[in-house]
Amino acid sequence: MREYTPDTITDAVLEQMGQTPDPRLKEIMAAAVKHLHAFAREVKLTPAEWLLGIEFLTRVGHACSPVRQEFILLSDTLGLSTLVNTLHDSTAIEEATHTSLLGPFYRENAPELANGDNIAKNDPAEEIQLSGRVTDVEGRPLRNAQVTIWQTSSGGAYDIQLDPSEPNFRGVFHTDDSGRYLARTVRPLGYYIPMDGPVGEMVQAQRRHGKRPAHIHFLISAPGYRELVTALYLAGDEHLDDDVVFGAAANLVVHERRDDLESPGAPSIRFDFRLSRASDADMQTGRVGADPAQIAREAVLTARA
Amino acid sequence: MREYTPDTITDAVLEQMGQTPDPRLKEIMAAAVKHLHAFAREVKLTPAEWLLGIEFLTRVGHACSPVRQEFILLSDTLGLSTLVNTLHDSTAIEEATHTSLLGPFYRENAPELANGDNIAKNDPAEEIQLSGRVTDVEGRPLRNAQVTIWQTSSGGAYDIQLDPSEPNFRGVFHTDDSGRYLARTVRPLGYYIPMDGPVGEMVQAQRRHGKRPAHIHFLISAPGYRELVTALYLAGDEHLDDDVVFGAAANLVVHERRDDLESPGAPSIRFDFRLSRASDADMQTGRVGADPAQIAREAVLTARA
Repeated sequence: MREYTPDTITDAVLEQMGQTPDPRLKEIMAAAVKHLHAFAREVKLTPAEWLLGIEFLTRVGHACSPVRQEFILLSDTLGLSTLVNTLHDSTAIEEATHTSLLGPFYRENAPELANGDNIAKNDPAEEIQLSGRVTDVEGRPLRNAQVTIWQTSSGGAYDIQLDPSEPNFRGVFHTDDSGRYLARTVRPLGYYIPMDGPVGEMVQAQRRHGKRPAHIHFLISAPGYRELVTALYLAGDEHLDDDVVFGAAANLVVHERRDDLESPGAPSIRFDFRLSRASDADMQTGRVGADPAQIAREAVLTARA
Repeated sequence: MREYTPDTITDAVLEQMGQTPDPRLKEIMAAAVKHLHAFAREVKLTPAEWLLGIEFLTRVGHACSPVRQEFILLSDTLGLSTLVNTLHDSTAIEEATHTSLLGPFYRENAPELANGDNIAKNDPAEEIQLSGRVTDVEGRPLRNAQVTIWQTSSGGAYDIQLDPSEPNFRGVFHTDDSGRYLARTVRPLGYYIPMDGPVGEMVQAQRRHGKRPAHIHFLISAPGYRELVTALYLAGDEHLDDDVVFGAAANLVVHERRDDLESPGAPSIRFDFRLSRASDADMQTGRVGADPAQIAREAVLTARA
């Protein structure tokens, strides 16, 4: 019969999980157990510390509600979400625009708009123009690509934090024959992740500021291409280099310009998105991070500091 | 400015956590991030799988209530709890009786009983005697050691699953001058862990039976000695070798005997517990797994399959 030691318990667990019929579940759980145990062995986790961890995870679970997803926030603040995004980018069959965090504020109720329409209603801030092209990796335009845009108000709040009944600061556009999209909006503002829950406590105990730099979300899809979930980060924000959820990256930073030919002197942001052709695997698994509507339903953060 | 790749994100997270003032929190979180990221890289976790994981943990959190602790159950079924116990045993300054799972059914309300009293009320099963000595590692008796015992009924249910208002199948004893404890009880029965929640779903997806072998819990303390949380497992149970929570171990198995001098022919179980002298660290951190009353309050499983 068995005796367990710190060195034999792991194999005993793997053996008991050895009959898992789903090969991918078996592989993932075996790796999870091995790394979880390696962690506990490395730090020589004590029973009292283990209990603190149990309590922390329980509080994270209890903070999750239909309008808040504290486990996604935990994953974001531990860099796991960005790691998963970079792993996802590494499996694209072509080098495309990089993925960034979907975040919890995507909604399916964004209004269908025409190119040039304004997504920001009742926001007194200066208007800026957002434009560019959606192309394949060779720069060939993708016409009629769907471009969903969402962002905060000029005050740093999403519509569902201001008035959940009224979609605002979001819209669905389609590229024209030359692959162009064109939206008008206001400058978004950076904001604190929710600091009033267990993840906020963790971030404060680590002396992190808890802020995200200003950004604009994009979800772009075109038939035959890998769906792209990403975000553009506004140059000049003081937290581009220390985004608390590791979303901001150099290749997604945009600079404001005032040289638009059609609106000379008006502030504008331009960015061209390059999409990879979809692989067979992409066609099977669908969009990044599964169904955003599901995330929106189950994984929403609304509370903020 | 930064670009993240699967190989650079980990260092970026560690850097952002680098100002954590508490050195132990810093050490534990750094190790947690490294192993969590190594896991995701090893299995090339996809966004869809990541979301499934988020949903699973959220359901584990929502299954936790004042009378159920699904995260402890998850830790138990992944072998983490037993790993933490074996790590704890390895830090004792003397080789003592091994720790086993405290479990979620410990209560502070066990009645104070005299040696020889019966802890099982209103259970029609055959009575058995439970006795032995509490000693130091040299075999010297520890007098007036406190021995708390708890177990299931002969039908496999704890009192709080039968009638939470009435303590039963539990009691607090004290050793006599020769270190002896003596209790009467009934044979406990093995049981299923709660199979109606997310951890039960996981166990079933892994084709594990979900059962624990019959056992009797002990919490033993004596001034100057390291508190011992352990359990005795009844020889002959079919699940001694594949306990779903990895609690049963060869050195904690007890055989029923019928050779008691005072009650010849009556069934009895004997086990001597050896306690390590407490180290300075033991004196600081107190009992195994922190305060069992807290566990009892926050970490109770009552639902069963």
